[in-house]
Amino acid sequence: MHTLDTLLYLTLIIVAARAGGEIAERFHQPAVLGEIAAGVALGLIPAIRLATGSEAIVFIAEIGVILLLFEVGLESEFGEYVRVGTAASLVAVIGVVLPLFIGAGATLLLGCRPHEALFLGATLTATSVGVTARVMRDLRLSQSKEAKIVIGAAVVDDILGLLVLSVVLAVAGGTAVRAGGVVLAAVVSIVFLVGGIAIGIRGAPFLIELTRRMRGRGILTVSAFALALALAYLSGLIGLAPIVGAFAAGLVLASTRDRVRITEQIQPVADIFAPVFFATVGMQVDLTRLSPALPDNWPILGLALVLLAVAIPTKLLAGSGAIRQRVDKLAIGIAMVPRGEVGLIFATIGLQREILSRGLYGAIVLVVLITTLITPPWLKHRLSRTRGRAREAASSEE
Amino acid sequence: MHTLDTLLYLTLIIVAARAGGEIAERFHQPAVLGEIAAGVALGLIPAIRLATGSEAIVFIAEIGVILLLFEVGLESEFGEYVRVGTAASLVAVIGVVLPLFIGAGATLLLGCRPHEALFLGATLTATSVGVTARVMRDLRLSQSKEAKIVIGAAVVDDILGLLVLSVVLAVAGGTAVRAGGVVLAAVVSIVFLVGGIAIGIRGAPFLIELTRRMRGRGILTVSAFALALALAYLSGLIGLAPIVGAFAAGLVLASTRDRVRITEQIQPVADIFAPVFFATVGMQVDLTRLSPALPDNWPILGLALVLLAVAIPTKLLAGSGAIRQRVDKLAIGIAMVPRGEVGLIFATIGLQREILSRGLYGAIVLVVLITTLITPPWLKHRLSRTRGRAREAASSEE
Repeated sequence: MHTLDTLLYLTLIIVAARAGGEIAERFHQPAVLGEIAAGVALGLIPAIRLATGSEAIVFIAEIGVILLLFEVGLESEFGEYVRVGTAASLVAVIGVVLPLFIGAGATLLLGCRPHEALFLGATLTATSVGVTARVMRDLRLSQSKEAKIVIGAAVVDDILGLLVLSVVLAVAGGTAVRAGGVVLAAVVSIVFLVGGIAIGIRGAPFLIELTRRMRGRGILTVSAFALALALAYLSGLIGLAPIVGAFAAGLVLASTRDRVRITEQIQPVADIFAPVFFATVGMQVDLTRLSPALPDNWPILGLALVLLAVAIPTKLLAGSGAIRQRVDKLAIGIAMVPRGEVGLIFATIGLQREILSRGLYGAIVLVVLITTLITPPWLKHRLSRTRGRAREAASSEE
Repeated sequence: MHTLDTLLYLTLIIVAARAGGEIAERFHQPAVLGEIAAGVALGLIPAIRLATGSEAIVFIAEIGVILLLFEVGLESEFGEYVRVGTAASLVAVIGVVLPLFIGAGATLLLGCRPHEALFLGATLTATSVGVTARVMRDLRLSQSKEAKIVIGAAVVDDILGLLVLSVVLAVAGGTAVRAGGVVLAAVVSIVFLVGGIAIGIRGAPFLIELTRRMRGRGILTVSAFALALALAYLSGLIGLAPIVGAFAAGLVLASTRDRVRITEQIQPVADIFAPVFFATVGMQVDLTRLSPALPDNWPILGLALVLLAVAIPTKLLAGSGAIRQRVDKLAIGIAMVPRGEVGLIFATIGLQREILSRGLYGAIVLVVLITTLITPPWLKHRLSRTRGRAREAASSEE
């Protein structure tokens, strides 16, 4: 695609996403809902759908979600995640095991072939850390304990998802599952994350000191951005989502004394690019292929309903893993529901490896869309009720 | 190119550009010199040179230079450019006519074919508004009258270059030069620029008022960025450089009361992306093809020397066009010397249309590189001398 065309598409996507976000906020909904919906609407225009195939647009969107998770990391403290570590891990494990087995079992009963059923179950294990983080931010709840557990769980979920995907691909490909390989992948991920953050927190003050000795304009911004990109790349290299590395980079810099300045400088960049990401998630949905007016689509729509009936309750149950924490477990479960971009990535791999047919892929995309779109308003509704009660209780105690 | 590879390349380019800029500043040189040099160094590594072909990297670089010119516009007032309009136009006209005819004549005498000679002359007419704007900013002289004349002249130069290119391509292609078409292109460009800015300055307060009524985070930043992209796109659509439109967008928003806030918010984004542009300009130079150690390269190097002998003095003379202004005319001439990205674009078109051979293309690239690299230190040297004297004169008067 020519640079000039890309300029046009990027402008349209940015304007549409912003308009969608604004409309959502007028209806007291999180902006991210409007951004995704704007993407779905843009996707109805075939010429604009083409932009989802543009290397440059895909990359700009990736930079957007990288910066979003980098910001979430910057606003956090590593210790907060350690404190909710057990709860977050348990939420993640339940949220992976239940959808995998129940999803595979249900689709097997419906007549899917074993490989298909296993892969469909695997796609239901994903949690969209991007959507979840944005909803929490839109609701100004990034600092709540629920948010820490959900984001921690989404990161663990990404590690587990990586392992599930490698096992399922091996099974589907007919190759032996090398237990050693799976264990190694798990160990590498955990060492990268925990080790990287631990080393990073010790090393970050030196990096900051180095930038203070340099003279150029914007050196702090550029260094912080480069660190986020570098860790995102390394994270992707070992098979995790790049955003997990960006989140780690944020956590590392959150421990430095320039945290506030970095946050201020990165914010405008994230404000511009993050909505592009959510719009492109919406744009990947081809609604015309999912119209219930065409009887040809009914089997797929039926399958999507079954998948939804598995996808939503299993993640709600996962919230019960938040043990020994004074938190709203149902809210945690709701926040784990959106499959977002992670579900789309899984489904796309399945399509490329010819494990999923176009029809099954369409069903998964519909599940991703619905779980992603219902979460923002649902979570807002749930949290405003419980927060409201907590506030009432607090004021009656006074 | 895979998103993950692009992440790696972008990180390397950002880090190398920043390091190059830092080294340049340690030697009291403008940072942009180091950024371009870092790009030339990166270009020596074949695997990284590949990145110059990445649609995403090219686009990020374009966003960088768009934001740079957007910022330059934001820091200016339209009236300032109107006041130096005659001087800037005269500088531009001299700076196009002299290199075109002397360049074509000299290369014709050297035995180039007429079409080649005409095209080589045309590539010497370009002035890199990007490099010039950055050098002025690096020297903290963006607000000087010299800077206004040079940037005004570079914009006029872009319009003239568009016309020269269309005429030269028609001649080289053997088609008749349609005078009507050339006049139309000129009129469209001028109407777009002057009309667009005039309408924009009247319309901008309403746009700002609209953003004030919206609620989302970063709405002002996103709107300003979208306007810069949209005008850059329109500018490219009518055949001008996209950065000319971005500059116009900056001028438009400079008249609004949110000018300072927009500048603050856009600055971090420009700090991150603009150096990517200058590094990629350097990366496009393949030094290994220009080594004087290989006798095969001697004819090209000889031609490059002749082109340089035309390219530099003719632009220095163009400075004398700054009539009726109390300015340093030599400094203006020096600032017009760099061909930068505009020269590369011209040369690439010549190569694609098979008007220039690989050898002639190599000679042009060398001229672009040298004129771009000598300008920052030369201009700094010149201006520090004259500014120093002016300061001495001012203090002795006290």
